Amino acid sequence: MSDATSRRGFFAGAAATTLGLAMPRRILGLERPAGPPQVSPEARLRELGIELPSAPTPVATYTPAVTVDNVLYVAGHTPRLEDGSPGFRGKVGVGLTVEEGRQAARTVGLNILATMRNHLGSLDPVVRLVRTFGMVNAAPDFTQQPQVINGFSDLIVDLWGEELGKGTRAAVGMGSLPGGMAVEIETYWELRT
Amino acid sequence: MSDATSRRGFFAGAAATTLGLAMPRRILGLERPAGPPQVSPEARLRELGIELPSAPTPVATYTPAVTVDNVLYVAGHTPRLEDGSPGFRGKVGVGLTVEEGRQAARTVGLNILATMRNHLGSLDPVVRLVRTFGMVNAAPDFTQQPQVINGFSDLIVDLWGEELGKGTRAAVGMGSLPGGMAVEIETYWELRT
Amino acid sequence: MSDATSRRGFFAGAAATTLGLAMPRRILGLERPAGPPQVSPEARLRELGIELPSAPTPVATYTPAVTVDNVLYVAGHTPRLEDGSPGFRGKVGVGLTVEEGRQAARTVGLNILATMRNHLGSLDPVVRLVRTFGMVNAAPDFTQQPQVINGFSDLIVDLWGEELGKGTRAAVGMGSLPGGMAVEIETYWELRT
Repeated sequence: MSDATSRRGFFAGAAATTLGLAMPRRILGLERPAGPPQVSPEARLRELGIELPSAPTPVATYTPAVTVDNVLYVAGHTPRLEDGSPGFRGKVGVGLTVEEGRQAARTVGLNILATMRNHLGSLDPVVRLVRTFGMVNAAPDFTQQPQVINGFSDLIVDLWGEELGKGTRAAVGMGSLPGGMAVEIETYWELRT
Repeated sequence: MSDATSRRGFFAGAAATTLGLAMPRRILGLERPAGPPQVSPEARLRELGIELPSAPTPVATYTPAVTVDNVLYVAGHTPRLEDGSPGFRGKVGVGLTVEEGRQAARTVGLNILATMRNHLGSLDPVVRLVRTFGMVNAAPDFTQQPQVINGFSDLIVDLWGEELGKGTRAAVGMGSLPGGMAVEIETYWELRT
Repeated sequence: MSDATSRRGFFAGAAATTLGLAMPRRILGLERPAGPPQVSPEARLRELGIELPSAPTPVATYTPAVTVDNVLYVAGHTPRLEDGSPGFRGKVGVGLTVEEGRQAARTVGLNILATMRNHLGSLDPVVRLVRTFGMVNAAPDFTQQPQVINGFSDLIVDLWGEELGKGTRAAVGMGSLPGGMAVEIETYWELRT
């Protein structure tokens, strides 16, 4: 068992939670099972008949994704469509309904997946969703940000499953977003080592 | 000295800052001292007579905490109370005073600690606070976000101390927050390896 | 080749993208070239005649920078000037022009660099920018957050170059910011191991 493997938190962390243990995780001596990936988001995409759009091209001074060790950082994505049109524009709760907001968040998700596949060559090296920062362009009295961002989160659970498809999350209301977009979502993911 | 230890930034980084050195950190050859944890936030909680609430249950498609290697990502938490009531609702600087905002941020902190203990079995494997993203539901002309989020940050310093209880932070004003909550806080923590 | 090196994502990740490969990164067996750093942001600062201000002192319960392994987390920074004056105050698109917002974002960048040099002793151990969370204090109908935050991002590209100076990014509009500042920027960076 390599030192890198012994330091991995995910499997050991999950076990520690399940067992209610407070032991240092590497003492638990847990390893990831060898063999093929347990979850293939690429296979799930095919099963569900979902086609990803082209990966969006950055329109400012940034890069869509950066890998540091086994964490993939993905830039804030919007619902911009492949033809360059804004997709979903306006404030949820004012110009757009919560359901339209959900659709916007799902559209953001497809763009994020397209960026990830473009960066890694496939979605299959992605072990799990780690963190979602879901930003809703909303009026000051809007309260249903979680329902809007579920449009993204439910898509990811459809591909990675209930356990690995759920990450930590904040779903919050922004004063304004670039181009007047309805939703922007930033994510981190864990990669297979 | 394991390779994982040699790559650890915290002790070496702190030393490099203190000494004003620009040397690569692993050349410094610093190690964490062996033996028991230097800080026990669980013991401090008992000393201060603080009882944690039950860990809040996610009400949307996310998970409260995810561990990747030695970093614990904790989802955005709100001041929701154990009985499900919202705790602190409204905009700080309009419906709520700065002091009420501080109390809301402290309440968020107790919820975050409850989630962490639930996830890890104890707070003691947590070496330090790494990052706080403190979000205040505020009017457009509100300027005292730092004073509000200090309600959280001061609680953490009470438990982990001046050095390890302070992380990086942004304390900012949101257009709106889920359920009209007054404060939401997202955090990252470093775990003992 | 140490295990830590074999797990590094940057070089292997970039190669995987270029080659369009979906192979696990460590199978690629890529290593960072030995020898001196390829990019010296300190040398570039001198070439460009840029002098950094003093590192800003935190005015609340947080610390300006935290290192965990090879990731440097830098707190949210504002355009506050060395003399303590706020630098750029007001809402972009209302009291301030987009160009003034850009200048504010560049000023934030100089403050961030000052903090990093103070923390590490030099900017040269910093391999690359990983993530920028660029927050613009803006009116609800403001749409040009990316142009504002480019004032920061372009500065970083000037120092680290097109490849390593671009990280992931979200450039978004906040309801309000501390002290009424025009811009606040939070960043993560990758350090040489």
